[in-house]
Amino acid sequence: MSGAASTNPVLVEVLRGKTVESRHAGAVAIADADGRLVLALGDVERPVFPRSAVKAMQAIPLVESGAADAFGLCDDELAVACASHSGDPVHVEAVRSLLAKAGLDENYLACGAHWPVSDRAMRELIQAGRRPQAIHNNCSGKHAAMLAASAYLGLGPRGYERPDHALQVMIKGIISETCGIALDRDGMAIDGCSVPTWSLPLAALARGFARLGTGKGFPPTRAKAATRLLEACFACPDLVAGEGRFDTIAMRALAPELFVKGGAEGVHCAALPGLGLGIALKIDDGAKRGTERALTEVVTALLPEARSVLAEQIEGDLLNWRGIKVGKMLAGPVLLEALATLNPAPRQQVGGANC
Amino acid sequence: MSGAASTNPVLVEVLRGKTVESRHAGAVAIADADGRLVLALGDVERPVFPRSAVKAMQAIPLVESGAADAFGLCDDELAVACASHSGDPVHVEAVRSLLAKAGLDENYLACGAHWPVSDRAMRELIQAGRRPQAIHNNCSGKHAAMLAASAYLGLGPRGYERPDHALQVMIKGIISETCGIALDRDGMAIDGCSVPTWSLPLAALARGFARLGTGKGFPPTRAKAATRLLEACFACPDLVAGEGRFDTIAMRALAPELFVKGGAEGVHCAALPGLGLGIALKIDDGAKRGTERALTEVVTALLPEARSVLAEQIEGDLLNWRGIKVGKMLAGPVLLEALATLNPAPRQQVGGANC
Repeated sequence: MSGAASTNPVLVEVLRGKTVESRHAGAVAIADADGRLVLALGDVERPVFPRSAVKAMQAIPLVESGAADAFGLCDDELAVACASHSGDPVHVEAVRSLLAKAGLDENYLACGAHWPVSDRAMRELIQAGRRPQAIHNNCSGKHAAMLAASAYLGLGPRGYERPDHALQVMIKGIISETCGIALDRDGMAIDGCSVPTWSLPLAALARGFARLGTGKGFPPTRAKAATRLLEACFACPDLVAGEGRFDTIAMRALAPELFVKGGAEGVHCAALPGLGLGIALKIDDGAKRGTERALTEVVTALLPEARSVLAEQIEGDLLNWRGIKVGKMLAGPVLLEALATLNPAPRQQVGGANC
Repeated sequence: MSGAASTNPVLVEVLRGKTVESRHAGAVAIADADGRLVLALGDVERPVFPRSAVKAMQAIPLVESGAADAFGLCDDELAVACASHSGDPVHVEAVRSLLAKAGLDENYLACGAHWPVSDRAMRELIQAGRRPQAIHNNCSGKHAAMLAASAYLGLGPRGYERPDHALQVMIKGIISETCGIALDRDGMAIDGCSVPTWSLPLAALARGFARLGTGKGFPPTRAKAATRLLEACFACPDLVAGEGRFDTIAMRALAPELFVKGGAEGVHCAALPGLGLGIALKIDDGAKRGTERALTEVVTALLPEARSVLAEQIEGDLLNWRGIKVGKMLAGPVLLEALATLNPAPRQQVGGANC
């Protein structure tokens, strides 16, 4: 043994037979809206890029500005604005509709193209002899929302994705205020879909999600905007991700107790409005399987009713190409020990989804 | 900060902008055929599953038994026997040919089906309205080799994939003898393609690859079999993986100085016959991107001529959906420091590929 060790604990163990084959280290923070840490496991002060986990924060200008009202946006359009969607027809239609209501179309999208996340949607494109377009990009709803907000605010749609565009400056301010932390230009990078992503500690991100879920510490118009966006996601969880995907499964069963949103490179965040808490988790290596397995454990520790909903994730069976069970994914002992110390605050009153 | 740290050093850092976004920890061993460790970074004694990295060892019975000669197998069929192939037509044809020469067909394959690794091959299947078959499984060549060896040895093709089948017992013995270590039934698990995979330390695996590349310590028939398999891979590197993939790129340019073979869950092994060395590397979290980036650094430290061949891997640029450079993958400082201490033995004489 030699060399410096990596510093975060193993949150998830991947077993094959009786042997741990792979390990996912990471960190997780649970905080309230005032920034009090209920749990800090691993390095929760090291900056991470939140990536797509903060799409609901990035969508706030669309609602807070009055654009959503002026354009008459519906829940499915607001949900897809917060989405990392699967590129199924239902998602593509919602993004097109959002753009059309703002007097725009998909030619303005600067997110770049990739094959739909949904296997079925990808196969349908291939069978039709077509190539993926920007509208199929999992971020196209976020981009449509940015375009619509820019149009409404008279900022012009061209270049809306650039760090110095007034809309991105506004979004930077919203993330900074929500998470209660200054954002450093040196900690900015470009996301997969070409908009800026601002690095910040998991502790601040967890606080931001506690605020997003409760509105605590927000000016009234922002609190109202956040509530409207989360209620749209609660009403249309299939628009936020897609069939068979974690965020859709979890919110379909657990809204309005849980808002949850994943990002690339192993980031996953959640708001638990009834408990007044936010969760921010990062798997160091960026693996989605580790992120979802660890988050499942954290969520079920706080919301026991999640255990039956997320049973498949908890069981964590790994099947091979013939469907034989060859292993499983388990929460690591350090994570289980940390979660066992949790003593969640009494549940607060939560409003119903505005479907 | 709290909780037990994971124990292996960070071998690869994934940067977005100026910030390290993700980290891949792992371990790497370099050994000679006598088991002397030239490098041991991280925990090289913890058992890992070699998965597909040892396909050339699993193919030894096919040649050593005399089956390959009796069936008149060519280099492309022997190379695909050692392959994790892309499922392109060239691979499918080689596997079908191997099976046909042994009087068998693809209905005997017990590997299960998955979509071809090759995007082009996958799209062609979809466009033709077809589903993937066992022949498209990246392991179908290994299974065809196991079937052919079983048939030649009169062991019967049915159940050839099971741990207690005489062929698998024979393979277990070959891996054990090659790597110089007893294999424990408790450390056995079932691979993605349903054959057994035997866990063993990276130190032993590196020694096994040094032996595989040099034949040192092998009985003459086994040394001859190993040479024939490696020369087939050197002659047909496109059969061992596929277009655009690491093992094909590396061996196309560096054979016969380098034999290299990746496995699932972050394992990658190599033999450097001219230096008399073997390399075994495992990224703890199982990420292929980390494995290939780290192995590139190890290989270029031992074979300076690899630097230009693997320039794209070394540069490690990360592009987003619009092709904008958003980050890069770098070898971690601990890996670079460890490699700087290497003082490779003088190059030995290496024979040319038997194409």
